[in-house]
Amino acid sequence: MAEQRVLEVDLGERSYPIYIGDGLLGRADFLRPHLRGSQVMVVSNETVAPLYMEKLMPGLHGLQVAHVVLPDGEQYKTLDVLDRIYTALLENRFDRSCTLVALGGGVVGDMTGFAAASYQRGVDFIQVPTTLLSQVDSSVGGKTGVNHPLGKNMIGAFHQPRAVIADTDTLDTLPDRELSAGMAEVIKYGLINDPDFFAWLETHMDALMQRDKGLLAEAIARSCADKAAIVAADEKEAGQRALLNLGHTFGHAIETGMGYGEWLHGEAVGAGMAMAAEMSLRLGWLGAQDRERIDALLRRAALPSQPPEGMGTQQFLDLMAVDKKVLGGKLRLVLLKGIGGALIADDFSPESLEATLEAFQK
Amino acid sequence: MAEQRVLEVDLGERSYPIYIGDGLLGRADFLRPHLRGSQVMVVSNETVAPLYMEKLMPGLHGLQVAHVVLPDGEQYKTLDVLDRIYTALLENRFDRSCTLVALGGGVVGDMTGFAAASYQRGVDFIQVPTTLLSQVDSSVGGKTGVNHPLGKNMIGAFHQPRAVIADTDTLDTLPDRELSAGMAEVIKYGLINDPDFFAWLETHMDALMQRDKGLLAEAIARSCADKAAIVAADEKEAGQRALLNLGHTFGHAIETGMGYGEWLHGEAVGAGMAMAAEMSLRLGWLGAQDRERIDALLRRAALPSQPPEGMGTQQFLDLMAVDKKVLGGKLRLVLLKGIGGALIADDFSPESLEATLEAFQK
Repeated sequence: MAEQRVLEVDLGERSYPIYIGDGLLGRADFLRPHLRGSQVMVVSNETVAPLYMEKLMPGLHGLQVAHVVLPDGEQYKTLDVLDRIYTALLENRFDRSCTLVALGGGVVGDMTGFAAASYQRGVDFIQVPTTLLSQVDSSVGGKTGVNHPLGKNMIGAFHQPRAVIADTDTLDTLPDRELSAGMAEVIKYGLINDPDFFAWLETHMDALMQRDKGLLAEAIARSCADKAAIVAADEKEAGQRALLNLGHTFGHAIETGMGYGEWLHGEAVGAGMAMAAEMSLRLGWLGAQDRERIDALLRRAALPSQPPEGMGTQQFLDLMAVDKKVLGGKLRLVLLKGIGGALIADDFSPESLEATLEAFQK
Repeated sequence: MAEQRVLEVDLGERSYPIYIGDGLLGRADFLRPHLRGSQVMVVSNETVAPLYMEKLMPGLHGLQVAHVVLPDGEQYKTLDVLDRIYTALLENRFDRSCTLVALGGGVVGDMTGFAAASYQRGVDFIQVPTTLLSQVDSSVGGKTGVNHPLGKNMIGAFHQPRAVIADTDTLDTLPDRELSAGMAEVIKYGLINDPDFFAWLETHMDALMQRDKGLLAEAIARSCADKAAIVAADEKEAGQRALLNLGHTFGHAIETGMGYGEWLHGEAVGAGMAMAAEMSLRLGWLGAQDRERIDALLRRAALPSQPPEGMGTQQFLDLMAVDKKVLGGKLRLVLLKGIGGALIADDFSPESLEATLEAFQK
């Protein structure tokens, strides 16, 4: 029995709906109201296309549909691979009224979104995210782009989709590690400013990890709503929006230190949140019991609650110093005054950071 | 005696000034109020950099200034060359508060603008146009981008500069043909909706072609004001803005038919305006005397008022059919109901177009 939720992301004239539920792929009633023209370019990757491209087609019957299949992986999120999307659009003579559909995870979504932002100076796009991470993260915020050899996500644009269609059926084929990685971002929303959601996750984590469709849809909807509330208040990334980086400064250091691809982004964010919690505990902002609740929930989501064994205190300090969130030379961290009480801190003592990093050295 | 004009382009919170006059390069008081941070990347090309890069420097004293010099020419307006700007920004560790300065003509402006639109999802840029064409055309409208092998300007964004500094001294080194090509766009603004300006140009064209600085500044200011009025009403290109394509559909056919680079864009637009005038005459919309006034002014600006001899009627029809302004299969042309009375027409008979093209065949 299919069930759908609809969430409206309120951004004035760029507002759009997020549809969440099972059996949504291929249903014309979700896709078609958001198409302005009759030309549709589906962008996917070599892993996702064989699984879901055909399922999408019934909803696009009678339109001029073309597709481009990109190689799978963050290492292909480049200007060169982006160019394949432009080429496909031009070879098919797609005009400004066309719509791009991103069928895949975060990389496909980021690249398709940026292609849409820049093709003929901007055309429509629709997100069909097929990973838990992209369903709860890329669906909201309008960030699109590609990597540069000298930095991740350095080239891009803010470009909002016309609609997001998050079909929970696509999570059936998601590898366990990627389910966990997505769950890290779900837990993050609870930690930032939604303690009731955090408690709800404590109740339902085992069923979520067993891929209960109804509960997953509820977790996705709540995560998107939480993120949308933050983003709507702060669409262009200042102030509030930085709260979404909870666990990310520590996490980026782990990703860089281990070499990208070794730990999944969500795994690094999981450990990063545990580290932010530890530092908050040491600053007297977070109780020992809440610190333990966070660790326990991460473990039940099969996420690391510790940094990798090989990484030492000095390596963390060096890597965090070059983090792009360093503005004006001051390191800013998102920390916790209790579960659901995230805040942006730049007035902590260097010693508190070092002591935190030392605490994870065994 | 230096004299400056300031024109404010009114786009709400993205409003910006255009400074026009001689002796503006290197004056800190025009540049610095528009810098948000202390990092400045000057983007120029191999022709312009040796002439004017040093002159710009006094205005940037004490800031972190870097520069990147691109090869000169439309054939380098590509994603690959664009990447050099990103690389320079990243190698210099430029952050989101940096400003890009475009020092050059339209190609440099388009590429720098798009680099600014997309670096870290958007940073500031300032235009310092050094050709008449870019001073009157690229200064207003916010169009940025690069070419794709399958189409011109197919990749880009709308991104408004923080300021435009049009120094008429830079026109001293402009080749005669490029002065004429820029003058074609100046004449265009008179033809679209400013008959008084057209008459003013008839009075002053000889002095303008002799590069009288005061008159050039007045012509640039009037052109920018005319374009800004059209663009402000229609920032995202629908309706009104299409009037700016006067002469361009015929002109694009000439550029493509002759091979890009053979005729300058402005030269093709000059001939294109004469062709639009001829068609308007045949439709009974333009008097014979006004038709002759247009031809005469084009000739005094050393612009062609005829298409190239080698191009036949059928070649024009074929090339115009694929023009990207064909929407929904219908060819739209900007025609004239009198000088200063441009309108968008798609209800002309095919015969009137063919008869116009035939009239230019000798």
